[in-house]
Amino acid sequence: MPQFLNTSDADFETRFVALLGAKREDSPDVDAVVADIIADVRHRGDAAVIELTSKFDRLELTPETLRFSDEEIDAYCAQVSDEERLALELAADRIRAYHARQVPEDASWTDESGATLGWRWTAVSAAGLYVPGGLASYPSSVLMNAIPAKVAGVERLAIVVPTPDGVANPLVLLAARLSGVDEIYRIGGAQAVAALAYGTETIAPVDKITGPGNAFVAAAKRRVFGKVGIDMIAGPSEILVIADKDNTPDWIALDLLSQAEHDESAQSILITDDGAFAQAVGEAVDKRLETLERRDIAGASWRDFGAVIVTRDLAEAARLSNRIAPEHLELCVADPDGLSEDITHAGAIFLGKYTPEAIGDYVGGPNHVLPTARSARFSSGLSVMDFVKRTTLSKMTPEALKAIGPAAEILATSESLEAHGLSVTARLDALNK
Amino acid sequence: MPQFLNTSDADFETRFVALLGAKREDSPDVDAVVADIIADVRHRGDAAVIELTSKFDRLELTPETLRFSDEEIDAYCAQVSDEERLALELAADRIRAYHARQVPEDASWTDESGATLGWRWTAVSAAGLYVPGGLASYPSSVLMNAIPAKVAGVERLAIVVPTPDGVANPLVLLAARLSGVDEIYRIGGAQAVAALAYGTETIAPVDKITGPGNAFVAAAKRRVFGKVGIDMIAGPSEILVIADKDNTPDWIALDLLSQAEHDESAQSILITDDGAFAQAVGEAVDKRLETLERRDIAGASWRDFGAVIVTRDLAEAARLSNRIAPEHLELCVADPDGLSEDITHAGAIFLGKYTPEAIGDYVGGPNHVLPTARSARFSSGLSVMDFVKRTTLSKMTPEALKAIGPAAEILATSESLEAHGLSVTARLDALNK
Repeated sequence: MPQFLNTSDADFETRFVALLGAKREDSPDVDAVVADIIADVRHRGDAAVIELTSKFDRLELTPETLRFSDEEIDAYCAQVSDEERLALELAADRIRAYHARQVPEDASWTDESGATLGWRWTAVSAAGLYVPGGLASYPSSVLMNAIPAKVAGVERLAIVVPTPDGVANPLVLLAARLSGVDEIYRIGGAQAVAALAYGTETIAPVDKITGPGNAFVAAAKRRVFGKVGIDMIAGPSEILVIADKDNTPDWIALDLLSQAEHDESAQSILITDDGAFAQAVGEAVDKRLETLERRDIAGASWRDFGAVIVTRDLAEAARLSNRIAPEHLELCVADPDGLSEDITHAGAIFLGKYTPEAIGDYVGGPNHVLPTARSARFSSGLSVMDFVKRTTLSKMTPEALKAIGPAAEILATSESLEAHGLSVTARLDALNK
Repeated sequence: MPQFLNTSDADFETRFVALLGAKREDSPDVDAVVADIIADVRHRGDAAVIELTSKFDRLELTPETLRFSDEEIDAYCAQVSDEERLALELAADRIRAYHARQVPEDASWTDESGATLGWRWTAVSAAGLYVPGGLASYPSSVLMNAIPAKVAGVERLAIVVPTPDGVANPLVLLAARLSGVDEIYRIGGAQAVAALAYGTETIAPVDKITGPGNAFVAAAKRRVFGKVGIDMIAGPSEILVIADKDNTPDWIALDLLSQAEHDESAQSILITDDGAFAQAVGEAVDKRLETLERRDIAGASWRDFGAVIVTRDLAEAARLSNRIAPEHLELCVADPDGLSEDITHAGAIFLGKYTPEAIGDYVGGPNHVLPTARSARFSSGLSVMDFVKRTTLSKMTPEALKAIGPAAEILATSESLEAHGLSVTARLDALNK
C-alpha cells in the first residue's frame, strides 16, 4: 500500500516533507574501484579495456573488434522486424523535428557607444554516448541522446554499449544508425567512460559524454567531469499525475505503473481533488498489479515510494507539484493548459487525458532524458543545448573605447589590478594624442 | 622567461602537447574537512555557521547580525566615491543590456498529427551567489553573477561574502545593490555554501549556487551539487592573444600581463606569425614587469606558464587556438571578424586591437565568468541560461494518439515495458470502440 495523504489532515505538512525527503536510492560506493579502472585505461589503453571487458562481460576482444564493423551493424539491423523499424523511424523523425527547433541563434548588434557585441554558437566537436547493455538497453534512449547531438552539429558521435557474452540488441544498433552515430564500440562500464574521456590507441577521445548507466558508470562520469563535459547524473524515474474525478481510474493507474515498472526505486504520485477517485485509482493499480509482467518491480516501487494525495482543489495540487518539482507531470484535468500556467518546476508536462507519459518516452518528440530527484528546480532535460556552447564576441571601435574605457580603468584600479587598467590606458593615451 | 615555440621546429608538436597538458593548479585535498563543515551546518544550523565564522573570520555574529541590514548597506554604499559609483553603474547597465538579449523564448506549435508540442522557460526561484572576501573580493564579479540571475527572473537572490575581522568592501555592497540582490550575509567558506544549500534557521535554502571561491568553496560546491545546482568550478584564468606584426608590442604585453597578474597559476599565451614581433612583445613584457604593482605574481605566471608561439600564418594560429580552447581570445589582426570565423572553441573573443580583454572584465557587456582549462570545448560562460530551466510540453488529441500511439506500443513491447504500452492501449481501445 502506498501512502495516502490528505492536505486537510493535521499531520499533512510533516508527512509531505518526509515524502519530499525520502531517500529512494542507495548508491554503492564504487569510487575507489572506478578510480583504479580509469587509471588503468589511461595508462594501458586498449589492453586495459580489452582485459576489463573479458573480466566483466565475458567477451574476448582485440583492438580490431572493439568497434562494430559496418557489416556487423548491417546484419543486426536486418534482424529487426518491419513493424519495429517503422516505429523507430517514426520516433526518430518526431524527435528530430522537435529538437531541430531548439538550435539556438547567433546574435550581433552595435550599441550606442559604437561597440559591436554578440555571441556565436558552435557544436561540441566529438561526443560519446553511453548505452547500458542487458535489460536496460533501450533503443529509445539511443534516439533521445544521439539525435540532439547530431541536430546540434556534433561531427563525431561515438556510442559505447556493453554486450555481455557477446549479445547485442539489434534495435540499439538500428537506433544508432537511424540517429547518424559514427562509431559503435562493444564496451561498457567505467572502462568505456575512461576510454571516451582519455582515448586509447583505437578510440579517439571525445569532449562530452552523455547517457545513463549503473553506479560504476555514474561514478566514472563524475570522475572524468572537467576533462570532458557530462550530462546530469540521473536518479530513479518519477511521475506525478494531477487528475480530477473525470478520468478513467484504470488509465491513471497504468500511467502510475509505467514509472513504477522501471525500477523498485521509481516513484509514482497521484494528486487529486477527489477522495473517491483517489480510492478508485488505488484499486485499479492493485488490479493491474495482479497480472503485470513486471509486477514485482512495479509493486515494490508503488508500495515503498508511491503516494496518493487528496487536495482541497487543483490550485493546491499545482502548489504541491511545484514543491515536488517532478521529472514527469501529467495534467489530466478539464483545463490542462490553464493549470500548466501555475507549474513553475517540472521536467516535462503531459497535457490532458490523451497524453500518457509513455508517449513522451517514445514518440512525442520532446526528450525523455529529464531532471530527477527535484532537480527540475534548477535544471532542464537533455536538448540540443547540451551539445553546443556559446562564444561571446566584443569589438570596440576607438570611439567606443573612449566612451567606456575610462570606467574600466576606474574599476581596475579599485580592484588593484593595475595591468588591466594600463591595457586600456595605453590605448586611450595613443588615441587621445 | 616563458616558453618560445615555433611551429616550424621539429619538436613543436611534443612541446605544444606538453603545454596543453601542463597542470597549473594544485588542488589541496580539503574534502574531508569540508564534509565535516557541511554536516555540522546541516545539523546545527546558525550555531554552526556562527562558530565557524568566529573561528575562520575572527568575527562574532548572532542570528540577527548574520545578514547585513539595509542601514548598514546604505552606510557602506555612501563610502563609495562618485567616480567609482558611476563606473559601476555604467558596467551594470551594459551588462544588463547584453544579458537581456539572452532571455530565451517559449515555443508552441501543432504538428501534422494534431499533437501540440513546445516548451516553456521558467526562472530558478532562489539563487545564492558566493563572493570571496579579502583581496579577491571583486565588485565586477558581483555584477557578472547577480545581473544574469535577476534578468532571468530569479525572485530571491542571496549573496554570501566573508568579512574577515569585520572588514567589508563597500564596492561589493554597492554592486550587490545595483544588481538587485535581495539578501547579503557576512559569511564565507564551506559553511556559507552549506547554509545556502541546506538552509539554517535564519537563511532560507536556495536552488542554485554560483560564484568563485577558494579550494574550500569549490569542494563544498561539488558536495552540494545535486541538492542544488552549481555553476562551473573555475580554474585559473587564461588569455590567448593572436596578433600580427601591425600591433604595438606594449599593448599586447599589457594584455598578457592583465591575466598573469590575477594569479601565479594564470596563463598568458601569444601566437603570432612574426618572429620579430614575438621578440618585441617578450621585451615589452619584461619592461612592464619592472614596475608593475603585482610584478611578483605576474612575473611568476609569465615565467612558469607563459608561452610565445610563432606560426607560419594566421590560419595555423587559429587551428592552434582551437586546440587550446582558451577562456579569453584576443584577435589583434587586420581582419579579426574574418579570423574569428575559424574559431570553434573559445569562451570569449575580443576583436581587434582596440578591444583589450580588460574591457570584457568590466564594461563590455558579455559575462566575464568563462570556461577555463580547455572546457570551452564543451561549455559556455555564465549567462541568463544558468538561471532558467526548460519544461517540455506535449498535448495529444485523440487523433494524434491514434496516429502515433501504435508506434509507442510497439517500442514499449520491444523494451519489455508492458505498462508503458498498456497506458496507450487502454486509451486507444476506448477511442476505437
